[in-house]
Amino acid sequence: MNQEYLEFAKSIAYEAGKIMMKYFNSDNGASYKNDNTIVTKADIEINEYLIKRVKSEYPTHSVDGEEEQFGKSNYVWVCDPIDGTAMFARHIPTATFSLALVVDGVSIVGVIYDVFTDRLYSAIKGEGTKMNGEDLHVSDVELDDMKSVSQFDMWPESKYNIYDVIKELGKKTYFVSIGSIVRSCTCVASGEFNLAIFPGTKHKNCDVAAAKVIIEEAGGKVTDLFGNEQRYDESINGCVLSNGIVHDEVIDVIKKYLKDEK
Amino acid sequence: MNQEYLEFAKSIAYEAGKIMMKYFNSDNGASYKNDNTIVTKADIEINEYLIKRVKSEYPTHSVDGEEEQFGKSNYVWVCDPIDGTAMFARHIPTATFSLALVVDGVSIVGVIYDVFTDRLYSAIKGEGTKMNGEDLHVSDVELDDMKSVSQFDMWPESKYNIYDVIKELGKKTYFVSIGSIVRSCTCVASGEFNLAIFPGTKHKNCDVAAAKVIIEEAGGKVTDLFGNEQRYDESINGCVLSNGIVHDEVIDVIKKYLKDEK
Repeated sequence: MNQEYLEFAKSIAYEAGKIMMKYFNSDNGASYKNDNTIVTKADIEINEYLIKRVKSEYPTHSVDGEEEQFGKSNYVWVCDPIDGTAMFARHIPTATFSLALVVDGVSIVGVIYDVFTDRLYSAIKGEGTKMNGEDLHVSDVELDDMKSVSQFDMWPESKYNIYDVIKELGKKTYFVSIGSIVRSCTCVASGEFNLAIFPGTKHKNCDVAAAKVIIEEAGGKVTDLFGNEQRYDESINGCVLSNGIVHDEVIDVIKKYLKDEK
Repeated sequence: MNQEYLEFAKSIAYEAGKIMMKYFNSDNGASYKNDNTIVTKADIEINEYLIKRVKSEYPTHSVDGEEEQFGKSNYVWVCDPIDGTAMFARHIPTATFSLALVVDGVSIVGVIYDVFTDRLYSAIKGEGTKMNGEDLHVSDVELDDMKSVSQFDMWPESKYNIYDVIKELGKKTYFVSIGSIVRSCTCVASGEFNLAIFPGTKHKNCDVAAAKVIIEEAGGKVTDLFGNEQRYDESINGCVLSNGIVHDEVIDVIKKYLKDEK
């Protein structure tokens, strides 16, 4: 059954990629929402398409999309139609599609699609992670390795202010912030990055629900900012997504600067 | 004559794009240099191609490429063959080609080419900035505007540690760090970003020599970290590249946290 869900998720992902490319170089109708985040015609169209397909093929499931929600079930399709919309609207090709099936709060199936490089990352819980069909594994790179590249996200309305954490860890690793936590998570799963830190805020589970299963099935570790497990069908308490090796060191630095406000 | 130099620079840029795409999805031979920065076959091949072309067409000029230099002249072709090599090697399409003609320390002609979106940004001093032939202008966005997106670069060996600056300005603007200061500068010139801050280090003039003329000819402002003019044919004292409107506010915050070590 999970394999069927995965095929369903992949078909949505490829359609989302087509919609993204339709708008990438033309008028994407960017506007700002009440929470000061940006939305384009493409985000809305992808979210609508997902709801249409779930209603048709899994009518008892629900949808938790960043732009629109549908139904109430313990089977939830959690979707960020375009993670990195601010980049997408500015023609920077790091924006990414993300979709997970979350059952009772646990990510069971995850798909991330980077249309710009045509890479589809997928995982089923317990069955490993693949990129375009090939097995994927996290890195064994420590934070102070010269190959260490890490991601953080931070915006004025973030739940936690993680700049002190970044400043301290930034003595050891080259931090980037490529405008999409999801795209950076594909790099954690593939071993190209060793770490991603996400400060979280209301409804931002949409951003990391798929990354949770994709990184862990590639051998990595994903927790909230303080090292705890959490549900991915509701607002999250921030997120640390790593190759596993650097995880405890990162959590220790976070605990030094931030108080758990869960 | 400057128009001729611009056409020359453009022809190098398009060839550089071809070389980048040749290696982007295949083995790019990434390795680490003595200063812990990364280099690929593509960086080296582009730098070699530039030197060959300058030797042939402007034999009295010199070349200051990030990977290789040639000659000694007051006419210097300053080039970063691939800015954002760490991203390029990790298949993230933000890496960018940059080439400037710097005469007596002043950027006279600049070309930046983003092969992934096929956008060529160019400027001649005194004649405005163009993107694929169309006029380009910086934004009129203030730092605390909800549309404000800013870039910073920071790595463990940077000349200045700008994290305190980023933390303070980050209360107002959404900071990203897309892995290429050059690519972010195209967004400053186009009005998509309002600011880029670059901490600088030895030889990093290669990264911003073209952006200097491209952003200023689009109506923006470019100085060192402390608001001073500087030469672009030698190591720089960091760089602030902005839409002009936010420039003084940014310099004030920098002066609060950093001491000018020039």
